[in-house]
Amino acid sequence: MVGVKNKQVVLKEYVSGLPKESNFQLVEGSIELKVPEGSNQILLKNLYLSCDPYQRIMMSKTDVSKFGAYTLGAPIHGYGVAKVVESGHPDYKKGDLVWGYVIWEEYSLVPSTQIHFKIENTDVPLSYYTGILGMPGMTAYAGFYEIGSPKKEDRVFISAASGAVGQLVGQFAKHLGCYVVGSAGSKEKVDLLKNKLGFDEAFNYKEEPDLDAALKRYFPEGIDLYFENVGGKTLDAVLLNMRIHGRIPVCGMISQYNLDRPEGITNLAQIILRRIRMQGFSVHDHYHLYPKFLEFILPLIKQGKMIYVEDVVEGLENGPAALVGLYTGRNFGKQVVVIARE
Amino acid sequence: MVGVKNKQVVLKEYVSGLPKESNFQLVEGSIELKVPEGSNQILLKNLYLSCDPYQRIMMSKTDVSKFGAYTLGAPIHGYGVAKVVESGHPDYKKGDLVWGYVIWEEYSLVPSTQIHFKIENTDVPLSYYTGILGMPGMTAYAGFYEIGSPKKEDRVFISAASGAVGQLVGQFAKHLGCYVVGSAGSKEKVDLLKNKLGFDEAFNYKEEPDLDAALKRYFPEGIDLYFENVGGKTLDAVLLNMRIHGRIPVCGMISQYNLDRPEGITNLAQIILRRIRMQGFSVHDHYHLYPKFLEFILPLIKQGKMIYVEDVVEGLENGPAALVGLYTGRNFGKQVVVIARE
Repeated sequence: MVGVKNKQVVLKEYVSGLPKESNFQLVEGSIELKVPEGSNQILLKNLYLSCDPYQRIMMSKTDVSKFGAYTLGAPIHGYGVAKVVESGHPDYKKGDLVWGYVIWEEYSLVPSTQIHFKIENTDVPLSYYTGILGMPGMTAYAGFYEIGSPKKEDRVFISAASGAVGQLVGQFAKHLGCYVVGSAGSKEKVDLLKNKLGFDEAFNYKEEPDLDAALKRYFPEGIDLYFENVGGKTLDAVLLNMRIHGRIPVCGMISQYNLDRPEGITNLAQIILRRIRMQGFSVHDHYHLYPKFLEFILPLIKQGKMIYVEDVVEGLENGPAALVGLYTGRNFGKQVVVIARE
Repeated sequence: MVGVKNKQVVLKEYVSGLPKESNFQLVEGSIELKVPEGSNQILLKNLYLSCDPYQRIMMSKTDVSKFGAYTLGAPIHGYGVAKVVESGHPDYKKGDLVWGYVIWEEYSLVPSTQIHFKIENTDVPLSYYTGILGMPGMTAYAGFYEIGSPKKEDRVFISAASGAVGQLVGQFAKHLGCYVVGSAGSKEKVDLLKNKLGFDEAFNYKEEPDLDAALKRYFPEGIDLYFENVGGKTLDAVLLNMRIHGRIPVCGMISQYNLDRPEGITNLAQIILRRIRMQGFSVHDHYHLYPKFLEFILPLIKQGKMIYVEDVVEGLENGPAALVGLYTGRNFGKQVVVIARE
């Protein structure tokens, strides 16, 4: 059995604190480019990898999620775009493009039972299926429309607003007729939000010594809907600025993932006084909406009414740096790693 | 103008920390037992006073609720049962019994616009309208059925479970077919929950050095619905034991009301991982359900299928001690103060 070389990114050691490039290692395995006789597996050539904040959770030994930590020495996994090289399953055929579960390696033999969506629309950048047309897009859509119960003219605040999900939530909110403010971690990101993505206002949270005061400046009448991506001090300040019957879809808390002990949230009693609904969600509960989501978003993309900013890095070997860069906000928009373009 | 004596309970000083009897004062005013000519006010003889945890918030100078702190030197107010002595408003007539907004004094002249429900059913103890048939009853009903989205066979946990609201939530949950566990602060309360109120299990939180371990003991498969009355350490432990798609109606956080700075909640990221809905609510948003609630609960009371435990104190002069006793858990069941029985 002769195989081809198969570069992989493996987790070298479990991470505590901020992940570093050196926690990962590029190794070279080999793979036979063939689906074993009688198997219904699928052989994928991996093209685009998605770097997503939730991956930090799986880098910890203590698997707080119960959803599976990465295995040491094995290639890590996540979302991505791939091309079917050979298929043992009737639903897929050679040449099909898919997005979904992808392993950080050049080629993968995967069970046909893994969640994969076939890519039908190829008149948009393929990398979009790691972002606006993939998991982050569906996350923004489900979190905003399904969990957030938004109304026209709602006052909407979004943290990590230039990220993979945040930039979409902001545009969805503007599309609906809301007043939209985002926070981000650099002047360039703030400029992007205000000048390119159509946010009404944006601010650099790193330059605000008093987040409560900043929120009061942008929301003198309070916040109806806070799309939560960061947790910690931002959440604590937001709770003091929510309006009665406000809603907080909780998508992520990236500021907390690298802490041994998370920061305490002290203003939670505001949930009672302001009758707030705070709801965590997972995109996995909402994938049945994907066809409806595509019908909504594809025309908007094609008409130029929905913009998506990507930070594209070339080469699997640059994947670890791209991935760990998420946790210091080094990425500018959705972080994508290209293994191959076709 | 000659009036009758009118004993009142006034707030002497704003409270920080645990409220004390000495924060209040019994004073003797006077009142003319007559509605002024041409006024549509109502003259009430106050019968039963309800002691409710939310009143702590109004004892603080810093009015975190924005709903109005008590005025120093003026009688405090809350919920209660009263009898109409004279009415300037066509909706009320002499002899009517009402429940709703009541001032802590013997007689009150109140605007007819205050929320008052006329008491139609008098074949139950009148004091019930401060509890099971009043605000706490509606709170339990709305919080459990409307906010909690309960299902038969849900695993339900209730803190402050022998209190005015908790004891009802537990019985509602059993009525629906749930597995129900309550926490309370003494052996007697735990016995009450298990032996009289039909809870499946109950424990004394003061005797549990590790609340997480206690919850894992009673909920090896996790909690579907946590009815939150206390906040703080209990909430933090509960978050580690919620099931996927669990719900947390947030009714109160009595453990936090007396702290200058609330305890930090560190396990909030579980809201994402477990897709929890946590929702604060106010009974004020649900009073339109009151007729439906009475239809539900009155037959259950009359058939002996719903029990209500009250801690009844005689005399307005004993009101302050009864009220402050709430915050150390001195009360055994719903705390009521009787000014007069008719």
